[in-house]
Amino acid sequence: MSYDGFFADAIARLQEERRYRVFADLERLAGRFPNAVWHSPHGPKDVVIWCSNDYLGMGQHPKVVAAMVETATRLGTGAGGTRNISGTSHPLLELESELADLHGKEAALVFTSGYVSNQTGISTIAKLIPGCLILSDALNHNSMIEGIRHSGAEKSIFRHNDVDHLEELLKAAGPDRPKLIVFESLYSMGGDVAPINRICEIADRYGAMTYLDEVHAVGMYGPRGAGIAARDGAMNRIDVIEGTLAKAFGCLGGYITGSAVLIDAVRSYAPGFIFTTALPPAICAAATAAIRHLKTSQRERKRQQDRVRRVKAALGAAALPVILSDTHIVPVAVGDPAHCKAASDLLLSDHDIYIQPINYPTVAKGTERLRITPTPCHEDIMIDRLAAALFDVWNRLGLPRDNLA
Amino acid sequence: MSYDGFFADAIARLQEERRYRVFADLERLAGRFPNAVWHSPHGPKDVVIWCSNDYLGMGQHPKVVAAMVETATRLGTGAGGTRNISGTSHPLLELESELADLHGKEAALVFTSGYVSNQTGISTIAKLIPGCLILSDALNHNSMIEGIRHSGAEKSIFRHNDVDHLEELLKAAGPDRPKLIVFESLYSMGGDVAPINRICEIADRYGAMTYLDEVHAVGMYGPRGAGIAARDGAMNRIDVIEGTLAKAFGCLGGYITGSAVLIDAVRSYAPGFIFTTALPPAICAAATAAIRHLKTSQRERKRQQDRVRRVKAALGAAALPVILSDTHIVPVAVGDPAHCKAASDLLLSDHDIYIQPINYPTVAKGTERLRITPTPCHEDIMIDRLAAALFDVWNRLGLPRDNLA
Repeated sequence: MSYDGFFADAIARLQEERRYRVFADLERLAGRFPNAVWHSPHGPKDVVIWCSNDYLGMGQHPKVVAAMVETATRLGTGAGGTRNISGTSHPLLELESELADLHGKEAALVFTSGYVSNQTGISTIAKLIPGCLILSDALNHNSMIEGIRHSGAEKSIFRHNDVDHLEELLKAAGPDRPKLIVFESLYSMGGDVAPINRICEIADRYGAMTYLDEVHAVGMYGPRGAGIAARDGAMNRIDVIEGTLAKAFGCLGGYITGSAVLIDAVRSYAPGFIFTTALPPAICAAATAAIRHLKTSQRERKRQQDRVRRVKAALGAAALPVILSDTHIVPVAVGDPAHCKAASDLLLSDHDIYIQPINYPTVAKGTERLRITPTPCHEDIMIDRLAAALFDVWNRLGLPRDNLA
Repeated sequence: MSYDGFFADAIARLQEERRYRVFADLERLAGRFPNAVWHSPHGPKDVVIWCSNDYLGMGQHPKVVAAMVETATRLGTGAGGTRNISGTSHPLLELESELADLHGKEAALVFTSGYVSNQTGISTIAKLIPGCLILSDALNHNSMIEGIRHSGAEKSIFRHNDVDHLEELLKAAGPDRPKLIVFESLYSMGGDVAPINRICEIADRYGAMTYLDEVHAVGMYGPRGAGIAARDGAMNRIDVIEGTLAKAFGCLGGYITGSAVLIDAVRSYAPGFIFTTALPPAICAAATAAIRHLKTSQRERKRQQDRVRRVKAALGAAALPVILSDTHIVPVAVGDPAHCKAASDLLLSDHDIYIQPINYPTVAKGTERLRITPTPCHEDIMIDRLAAALFDVWNRLGLPRDNLA
């Protein structure tokens, strides 16, 4: 039997649908971000990255790099085992304590990624609540959907950010049934924000527990960088806050925070936590340094917000179909996977700008887009060049000027 | 509704069954491993670690630490995004090319952990093969079981390392059905090894594809550290070899290797790969340094084997119930979770030796054990002290001298 035939067919299907992905080989240089070297088929070339999830450039912050270097030198490169099998390091416990403090919760638990924290966190929590009904926002991230599916719990999906629909579903479930509302604070592909306080109000009214994903908000919103719930004064109303160390904190890993007993139960029952090697001490120390810095420094957040405003204004002036929001995500609608890929390719080849195409399954078909993430490190001149480059690409490809998304 | 009550109940169940886990807060010092500092409730204390999965001590190797430090300094701490969203770094591609070469395959794909590589790797491969039947060894790791479950494919479980039983199941499935055999080379809790060549023979005979987990073998077996399949001359007979960067290679992350078209299909379809931040360049560079070193150096492997022989001899002489195997894993049978925890506690408090208890769900109930992993860094005097300490603990707790496992 030719098994490779099955895999070749799968690849061919992607190519037919024009959503076969090619990853750009990039070298981001510490101290020079968002400048990077693109290792193109024709040799290395300097480019500007406009789509990084290192939202504040903390992955190159001297304090963060120094913490990683110092800890790797002192404690070595790896954790050496699962949390139980000698992999629990002192820097990892310090990180968990820092995270609990950040979100005003009793405890925190670190996972190897935000993806894993959602997948094994949600499934474990729901499994430990007999008869749990999960209420899930229609646009929740794949990692949350996988966690919900994994839990085996019954689920009801509410229309994106639609509190009235959520209330209908909560009411229909009845007062005696345990209910878990799972949602995000900031949806990363559109940049729109959940009505957290209103969701908390009806969660209280109907006796539901709340699980909030803040991965695209931690570090960037709230007076200490705890996220949108902190900014909106709703942090203490949320039962579980999930976050990442791999975006605004510039490192790797994910976490959940909540009551001590909930964290202890997830720690004790979650397979994706128990049976995997712990995060290296050097990664933990670097993340702790980033979190501590952003708890007090407002400079990065202010400068990011300023850059975002400037980018939105420049793109608007160039009549580009920006999908508007109040956040740091600046999506530009394309609406077709082949055009989206072509636009990205032209930006890279002709304008030395890297913005990857966002196609299905990351977003729904027909809502393909370029997704721009301004950081504090993007200078005025880069913004001007970005707007001019997009203007040129839109003209050459005859892309729509209306926002179709 | 008191949701915390559900979690408190879950914790209470573990405590009743005497399998509530406490993680030791350890600080492994580069250059001094297996010595470490245990941050005990009464303050820091020097201990010797005898249960690390940093099997060769590569997590403190000067070349590996230097690669991490140099790369973090030059490229920063994080990848900055998913593989598609600007997270594909040059060191990550170099690592994948190094891994493909290690296993003599066309291509490799790196994941954030070995757990994720199995979970999303197996499920994606099986999903892409219509009507696939998975044949799974009864003692496969939790990450493989989760991958199989996730695939939605039908599965048949064959008795551990029982080739005749596997053959029965293959025959029963019929020649036209696609079949995927999923197994490990070295089972980490007992240290026993799969009959890889015999499994490959019947895979060929019945037209089955093979997926082999080598996480506890890479770095340590075979002339270049490619694992047990390489040692047994079976590497080119296996379709997919999965491994880890977090054990003998001393870092973090996992991978699969196989044909270019299979790797491309998994890269394109696996949610646990697509939607998660890439491994940091500094981790990739450190792993590459470890793999390259172990491709040519025999010193670490020889010294480890020598240490293993010495430990087995010393424990045998002390009449301890060692579960024998030909590998570097030295389990000592206890057979009860409370005794297992008590033995581990006594070793730490009275003998400055850290070996965590291995209880259910990591092993079956009734087969609880201490699991010892000698490394090249363990000196003769440490081995003598280990044997004397275990002898003392076995006497004081009245533990069985017979191997119950």
